[in-house]
This record gives sequence, C-alpha cells and structure tokens, in this order.
Amino acid sequence: MNDPLIIDGVSLSSRLIMGTGGAPSLAGLGEALIASGTELTTVAMRRHHSGADYSLFQLLTDHSIRILPNTAGCFTAREAVHTAELAREAVETNWLKLEVVADEDTLLPDAPELLDATEELVRRGFVVFAYSNDDPVLAKRLEDLGAAVVMPLGAPIGTGLGILNPHNIELIASRAAVPVVLDAGIGTASDAALAMELGCDGVLLASAVTRAQHPTQMASAFRHAVTAGRLASQAGRIPRRMHAQASSAMDGRVGY
Amino acid sequence: MNDPLIIDGVSLSSRLIMGTGGAPSLAGLGEALIASGTELTTVAMRRHHSGADYSLFQLLTDHSIRILPNTAGCFTAREAVHTAELAREAVETNWLKLEVVADEDTLLPDAPELLDATEELVRRGFVVFAYSNDDPVLAKRLEDLGAAVVMPLGAPIGTGLGILNPHNIELIASRAAVPVVLDAGIGTASDAALAMELGCDGVLLASAVTRAQHPTQMASAFRHAVTAGRLASQAGRIPRRMHAQASSAMDGRVGY
Amino acid sequence: MNDPLIIDGVSLSSRLIMGTGGAPSLAGLGEALIASGTELTTVAMRRHHSGADYSLFQLLTDHSIRILPNTAGCFTAREAVHTAELAREAVETNWLKLEVVADEDTLLPDAPELLDATEELVRRGFVVFAYSNDDPVLAKRLEDLGAAVVMPLGAPIGTGLGILNPHNIELIASRAAVPVVLDAGIGTASDAALAMELGCDGVLLASAVTRAQHPTQMASAFRHAVTAGRLASQAGRIPRRMHAQASSAMDGRVGY
Amino acid sequence: MNDPLIIDGVSLSSRLIMGTGGAPSLAGLGEALIASGTELTTVAMRRHHSGADYSLFQLLTDHSIRILPNTAGCFTAREAVHTAELAREAVETNWLKLEVVADEDTLLPDAPELLDATEELVRRGFVVFAYSNDDPVLAKRLEDLGAAVVMPLGAPIGTGLGILNPHNIELIASRAAVPVVLDAGIGTASDAALAMELGCDGVLLASAVTRAQHPTQMASAFRHAVTAGRLASQAGRIPRRMHAQASSAMDGRVGY
Repeated sequence: MNDPLIIDGVSLSSRLIMGTGGAPSLAGLGEALIASGTELTTVAMRRHHSGADYSLFQLLTDHSIRILPNTAGCFTAREAVHTAELAREAVETNWLKLEVVADEDTLLPDAPELLDATEELVRRGFVVFAYSNDDPVLAKRLEDLGAAVVMPLGAPIGTGLGILNPHNIELIASRAAVPVVLDAGIGTASDAALAMELGCDGVLLASAVTRAQHPTQMASAFRHAVTAGRLASQAGRIPRRMHAQASSAMDGRVGY
Repeated sequence: MNDPLIIDGVSLSSRLIMGTGGAPSLAGLGEALIASGTELTTVAMRRHHSGADYSLFQLLTDHSIRILPNTAGCFTAREAVHTAELAREAVETNWLKLEVVADEDTLLPDAPELLDATEELVRRGFVVFAYSNDDPVLAKRLEDLGAAVVMPLGAPIGTGLGILNPHNIELIASRAAVPVVLDAGIGTASDAALAMELGCDGVLLASAVTRAQHPTQMASAFRHAVTAGRLASQAGRIPRRMHAQASSAMDGRVGY
Repeated sequence: MNDPLIIDGVSLSSRLIMGTGGAPSLAGLGEALIASGTELTTVAMRRHHSGADYSLFQLLTDHSIRILPNTAGCFTAREAVHTAELAREAVETNWLKLEVVADEDTLLPDAPELLDATEELVRRGFVVFAYSNDDPVLAKRLEDLGAAVVMPLGAPIGTGLGILNPHNIELIASRAAVPVVLDAGIGTASDAALAMELGCDGVLLASAVTRAQHPTQMASAFRHAVTAGRLASQAGRIPRRMHAQASSAMDGRVGY
Repeated sequence: MNDPLIIDGVSLSSRLIMGTGGAPSLAGLGEALIASGTELTTVAMRRHHSGADYSLFQLLTDHSIRILPNTAGCFTAREAVHTAELAREAVETNWLKLEVVADEDTLLPDAPELLDATEELVRRGFVVFAYSNDDPVLAKRLEDLGAAVVMPLGAPIGTGLGILNPHNIELIASRAAVPVVLDAGIGTASDAALAMELGCDGVLLASAVTRAQHPTQMASAFRHAVTAGRLASQAGRIPRRMHAQASSAMDGRVGY
C-alpha cells in the first residue's frame, strides 16, 4: 500500500518516528532503527555535540534516516528557541521537535510556554513538531499558530502506560488539518496500533524500544503495529454491538 | 523470525486463524484469506455441503490453507459430536473447532456440554480446538480432558468489543500447557495485538474481516497486528511506571 | 426510600451483605458490621465451631443480623453438600452460600461441581446463594436449577480489582429472574456503587472491609455506596454523549 | 463524621456542589437541591437576571445554600472578568466559578485565557474556583496564580462519560495544596465516588442530576456517593492483588 505521511512536502513511507533516547549502545540503537523501518528520528541537541553523536549522525546518514532535532530538557520558550537555533545550525534542518516541559517530575508540556515558543519558531521559519498534552483546545491552538505537526501524548514520557485518554486523542485527530502524531506513553505494540486506529497519522516513541529487553525485536513489533493500525483505520472496522451476532447464519445447519 | 505455532505436530507459520463466516462473496473471501496470510481456516459444516462450498474448498486447497471444520450452531454435546463425525468424513481431517453454545442470544459456550463433547471427541480421536468462555477454570479443565487448543473468547461472537477481561486471558495463557488462541470478540487490529501480548499463541477471527468495509485491507491489518503482538510479547516490554522518566538524561543539555 | 431486597420471602432493608472473613478481632468486626448496616452476614462453617465463633454468633444475634453459612474451602459438590448439612444443623437455617472452588490459587468457582451441588442442595430444601463466575450462561443455569440468589464475581476473591467485566455483570443482571448479588473482587466504594448501577440487587464483600486500614469507616463507606448505586440505578441516568452539551443554554448570557 | 471542606475560611459540611443548569422547573430543582444536601450551588449570571432567577435566589436563601456565580458562556478572559464583576455586585459575593471555554463544540477550557482571567480576578479580590481541563501542569499554575479551588474536568461538560483519565486526576489531587473539586463529566453515582477516591476534595455536577429521569432521587444518590467516596479515600483500601487471597484461612475447615 502506498500511503505516505507527508510533512512539509516531504513524503515518509513509514509512519513510525523513532527517538534515540535511552539507548544503551550505539550499535544496538542502529540495529533497532533499521528494524523499525523509520525514516525520521529525533535526536536531543545536547546529545548531538559529543563524539558518540557524531557516530549516530553518521549512522543515520548511512541509512537515509532524516534527523529531527528536539529541544528535550527545555523549560521555557526562550530556552527552546535558543536550542532550536543551535540545532538548525548544527544539523542543517529547519525541522524541529519542540518540547517545553513544566518540571522534571512530570515532564508534561507547559501550555503557555509551548504556545509562545511555537509562535516564535514558526516566525523564524521552523517546521515545528509540537509535543503537546492531550488537550484538544491546545492542539487546535498549536495548529492555528502554524505548527506543522501536532503531537499529543498518550501518557507521560517514559511511563509506558499507553493511551490514558483515547477520547481526547480521537477528538484531536478528528479536528486537525495537520498531521497528528501520538508521542510519549507508548509501552507496547497494541498501544501504537490503537493510536493509529484513533486517527493519528503517526506514532513517535523511544524508550519503548530502546529500553525493551530486546530492542530490535520490539522495533520490528512497532513497525508492524503502526502498519496494522493504519490499515485498520482505513479499512472500516465492524461496529461494536452489545449483543452477539453469528458469523454464519443459524439456519441450514447439518441436522440429524 | 521463525516462530511457528505447532499444533498436533503441524507447524503453522501464521498465528492468525481466519474464519469464513459472514463473507458476502467467495471472491472477496478468497482475496481476504490470502491477504491475511492464514494457513488454517474454519468452515462451518452446514456451509460445506452446498455448491458454493465446493468452490471454497477448492480455493483453500489452491492456497494450501488447511481446513478446520467447526460445529457452529450446535447446542448440545450430542449434536456437536454428530457434526464432528460428518466433518471428519467430508473434510478428511480429525481437526475440529468445537463450538457448543447455550443459546442464540448470547452464542456463549455452555460449559457442561462443552466438557462432555470434548471428552467424547478426544476419545474418538479428534484434535479438539475448544471454543470456551474466558473462565480460567474451564480452560484448565478442557486442557485436562485432552483439548489440543483452548480458545477463550475476548467478547461474545460478532460484537467486536475486543477483550473484555484481559486479566482472565492473561491468567489462562500463563497456566496453559497447550496453545491458547483468542477466539471471538475481536473488532480491530489493536485487539489482536493485545491478545498476543497477553500471552495467547494465536488469534481466530472471522467477521472482523469479512464484515469490514474493506475486508482485504483489514485482513492485512490483522496479519501485521498478530505479528506485532507476538514480537512484542517476546521482546520484553518496558515496565509501566506511575511517574515520568526522561528518555534522555536531564543533565548536560545545551546551556546558554 | 423503602426498597427492600426480598429473598425467600424475607425482606432485607440493606442490600449490603457482609462477610466475616479476614477480621483481625471480634470487637473490630462487630463495630464494622454495625457500621455497614448489614442484615445478613456470611460465616464460614469451619469458623463457627470454635469458641470465638460462639461470641460472633452472639454478636450477630444481639444485632438481629441473620447468618448465612458458607461452604468456603470446599472443592467438590460432595464436600459442599456435607458442609451445608452441618451448617443447617448448627445454625438452624436452610439458607446457604454455596462456594465450590476449583483450586487454592485462583479460588475461582468450578462450574460443573457448582451445578451439581446446587441441584442437590435445592433438592434437599436449601435456599441456595450460588457463588459463581461471571459467565451469563452459568448464571442462568444456576437459576434454572433453583438457586435463590445468583452471585457472580467481580474479580477473584481478595484481589480488590473491582469489576473486571462490567459487560457480563450487566448481561447477567438483565436476564435474571432471581436476585443477583455481586460477590468477590470489590476493593473500594465506587466498585460497589458500580455493581448496583449495572443492575445487581446487592453486594457481598468481606476483606474490602475487614482488611482495610480502618474497617469501620470503610464499612460505612460501603453502606453509602450501595445505597448510592441503588438509587442511581433507579433514577434514570443521563445518556453518555460523545460531545459536550451546555448545562445552561448558550444564548442570553450577560453581554457588554 | 465531622470532615468539612474548608474554602476561604468557610466550612462546608457537604462535599457535593450542585449546579442549577439544565433544570426543567424551579420546583423540581429545589427538591433536588435539598435532596443533594449541597451547601453551595452554582448559578449562571445570565440566568440570575430574570424573574425566575429571583425565585431561585429566594429558594437558595431559604435553605441556607450559598451561591457560587459562574461565568458560563464566556470565551475570553475579558468577558469573564466583566461577568465576574457583575456577579459580585448582583449576588454580593466575591466567590466565583471561573469558566472560560474555547468553543461551543467542546466547551473545553481555554488554558491561556483561563490563566489570564485567574490572575486578574485574584488581583481584584475574587475567590476563584477555576474550571480547568485535567492537565496537571495547568492545575498547578492556577494554584500558583492564587486560585482558591482547582476544578479539573472528568470529561467534557454534559457528556456523562465519567472520569476519562483517572491517572491525571489522581496526580492533580496529590500535588495540590488547595482543594480540588472534580467538575464536569459525571454521569452517575460511581463516577462521583471514584472522584473522591482519587483524592478530590469535592465534586461539582449539574446535568447528571437535573437531566436525570428522577432528579431528586439522583441527587440523593450523589449525596451518598460523595460521602461513600470520601470515607473510602480516608479508610485505607486494600491493595490490588493479581492473585486470589482467601478471606478465611484455608486450613481447619470442616472435614469428614
């Protein structure tokens, strides 16, 4: 099936965006990235500047995986904009995953700072992927300010709790005119499939793969799960019924 | 990954078993079966005896899909045993999906009749796939009586409600020494992935594909979903945490 | 509101049945029983024969709380019938809570033994309160065999997991012509309210009170919860809507 | 139990706050308010200025129910502040339920406008009850700006969907130094009990009562439910266990 995710005119054939955080080794990360089939991967700016990061950069280039720098660890719009500019210069891309979190305990997005940062970054020509909570109002505002992709969380970062409020995710996806990518909270394959079935256009995850016991296998699981969820979301599922319905007609069965 | 499901010494590389009930046309059914990648498919005995069924039989033979006759529509052990014998003769297989339901309203299995039928059919040399409710005690009893495969329901047949009691399914799978296949209730891809993550060895579904708006696409979705869930169940998922955890360390970020 | 639960011609004004298992002291138990407002309480037969049980018996008599002997710890119909006869003689009641469990790990009811025991005990003139799993078919069969009360579990005994399959409980309650009492699995007040809202006629619990940190307070919580759930189930709740609806009309608000 | 909710130095013995929206008649509303036991009730300002509202005002005065004017129907901080000033003059109270919603479709709070309005109203001496979404970061910010009560939603207004994200509500309650009152989304009694068990200090609802088939009975249900949930939240519930635990010891049962 040819069903690409198009962002900023770029066509991605995989709807799984993988983060690199939490990986214990570069070799393992590389293998997992390849198994995931991802064509876009987030890299924290603070990570990029060490020697290890040069190798990561090379690995991504070798496999034609596009880099999406993120502003992980920023607590204010000002910090985020500063980090974004460093990223643009270092990575030579105006794509940016914008994270502005309120505190280290929850790592939850801070709505006002996030809005301010989005407005400023769009003004400066960035293609903003805005990491957001699951508030449908905030999601719409981010879109109105020019975010290219809205990325509501399923659950707080690193919890693996899945999608705590499917109702909100479905509402966000149904009202958005830009791509919606579920970001954060994913723990296992069925969570990712569900995200797609709720109408998301993609899924972003990191530690669900990098911290799994067998990261490469889990990356492969997610590759299939995102494909499964996307296909199912387009295939027109059967309605939920309160009462049973035979798949075969009850009459005409073998008598004796 | 070479990870077959082995039943009665037969190795199945697909863990998705597809039913044929509910399909509006044979052509559409054939396409969906192929897209699903299934190697085993249930056929209601009453269906098998018409001309249309000869064509179905041919289609399955052409694609090397093994037939699993079922006793859909039987309400007593006696009826089920009788239907099983007809099936063995007609289809030339001793594999049998045993359904003994209590009534047409719920289509739920009737525990005592199911136990009686299992005992008798095992005595007669059948390889019994026992369609069961999600009671862990009943599942264990069926295994003790010699069922080759235990098949608990996720939800009543045709409801598409998914897995109503994941706790029970997980308990059944963790205690079983025979393969456990989730049967009935599946509505969409994430349900199938979840079944596998809970420890099931396979998934059986029919109307979720045959009654979807686009059956072939949905069949493909389930093919990926079952693979995804199986991989995830073996990959060692991250634990669920109540509180956030950064995927990248919080120190060392770009300062200014 | 005068809305008694009537069983075997006896009118109970409280719909909360309290078990005595798990109580660390008789004094504490007595206080909790009174706070719960219960008029019927289960006592395990093995417990009844010690000195401590004489005091418990006295306490129940003093507060006009009817005794419902149970067959906790029985694994076969034969054991259960034997224990029931001892109970009838010792407690001078033909009311009996019938428990026949499959094993000590799950403490789940064993359907075939439960059915056999029910049939035999009804024949012997007992008023059977049948502790069951949440299978709607089994519940109906127990009723058909003459059980006076059907008592499906919310979750396995002592787990405090609440109601794992509300769909089944609702189905059981909607099809029953005898009182349905939710038994086992209750952890906190909202679980009990939910049971009533699903259509149950009463709730039975023990360790949720006796093992709480403050049993008397928790007993009082459940008293209110059962009343709340019963009232709500009769009051005709608002429908669930997918979209918001203003409680006040949107027009005519203060302008400026 | 003497366990009042204290707001702005005022002690409320009922933790149920009832709204008046959606009531078909004043007589019915009065009866329901009394049955609910509430000591504080919200009144939309636009409603207050008609003749009918004079009667409502009288009814509340007669029953010593304090009025909490709200800014329902306001879409901006400016509108809300204006409405608040009108309310203060008309009702002679500086207590205010602040609602600033983003649109009529979702009626969801608009975070930035809500923050601005809170800041301004606190500056003007209002005791602000801030109706919020369930974002823990926004809840904390509202508290930091001086909100006297934070009121996260369970689900969008009027949906009756209950508490869509219990995890967030629990997080909000555990981090708050001011009272947290669950507002919006409540459909039935168990929802209200759950809100209290998650750590909320109170529950606010309107249409769940006023639009129920029997409002007075439903009001009574909620009165019990809030009491039940509060008691349970203080009583130290049993832990959730994955496996069964007998309430009575398994040894020493009657043998034969």
